[in-house]
Amino acid sequence: MNQVEQDQIKSLIRSIPDFPEAGVVFRDITTALKDAEGLRIIMDDFVERYKDKHIDYVLGADARGFIFGAALAYAIGAGFVPARKPGKLPAETVSVSYDLEYGSNSIEVHKDAFTKGDNVLVIDDLLATGGTAKAMTELVEALGAHVYELAFMIELADLGGRDILKEYDVYSQLKY
Amino acid sequence: MNQVEQDQIKSLIRSIPDFPEAGVVFRDITTALKDAEGLRIIMDDFVERYKDKHIDYVLGADARGFIFGAALAYAIGAGFVPARKPGKLPAETVSVSYDLEYGSNSIEVHKDAFTKGDNVLVIDDLLATGGTAKAMTELVEALGAHVYELAFMIELADLGGRDILKEYDVYSQLKY
Repeated sequence: MNQVEQDQIKSLIRSIPDFPEAGVVFRDITTALKDAEGLRIIMDDFVERYKDKHIDYVLGADARGFIFGAALAYAIGAGFVPARKPGKLPAETVSVSYDLEYGSNSIEVHKDAFTKGDNVLVIDDLLATGGTAKAMTELVEALGAHVYELAFMIELADLGGRDILKEYDVYSQLKY
Repeated sequence: MNQVEQDQIKSLIRSIPDFPEAGVVFRDITTALKDAEGLRIIMDDFVERYKDKHIDYVLGADARGFIFGAALAYAIGAGFVPARKPGKLPAETVSVSYDLEYGSNSIEVHKDAFTKGDNVLVIDDLLATGGTAKAMTELVEALGAHVYELAFMIELADLGGRDILKEYDVYSQLKY
């Protein structure tokens, strides 16, 4: 995404102080997604980057990763796989837990979501500490598939997500 | 969607008995979405139906409605708005509650998601009893916008969802 487009998308993102807790500035992407031109710029950039890369599946994180993941998969002719919070997937799953600041979370995919050698792009709206993203790479690899790259609309560069993903290629459209 | 395509997509959907509870047959769409050709057929059908209808926004229900909603909005040049479960949206919201078999749920959008006269397509994966769908129409109308139609991948015809939506146009790709 070029600088003009980055500036345009940043101007469409609403910054909300102290959400969900004091001291945090929440980057509200709904104002960019509801703008037809904003959505087009965001998705065109992902499509241009991944369209000729032989991606078999786009893996999107529950729930905002579904927004980018399915649109991208459809546009580049890949399949879409949702990585879901526990209890949502009805068939046999593989699950990975990861630590949060307080407590832990887990995320899962169906055991037949990928097969050995599949080329998988992992996508989410936001790269913060990288816990969810790292867990998604583990899901892909637990099924013998390959992580092509991880893609994000926004990267919060101070939170170190790129460090825990250092063995992977990571792409973000916008940095804060 | 023509009959050949309906049969093809139905053959890609996995039916899981007794999920999430005894007596229910869960229609697992993940097996259709991960199939690149299946995803293409599903989305092409929605795109063909809505591409020249001057849709300003596609409103998708949390979380599986995001899959279809964002892909459709991008493809037809509309904006995408997520209808979210409580506590997820950071700015001022409008909220609608609806009854479930046991208890109730609510769903919300930002107050600035739509403005008066906007033409909105409502989309979700599944039309069952219609509670979520009806709540989404109320969100659209609470902000003065217009419901163009409601679109679903699957309709469970015995559950009466179409009845509580009878004042709207309803489209479903597949019926069970």
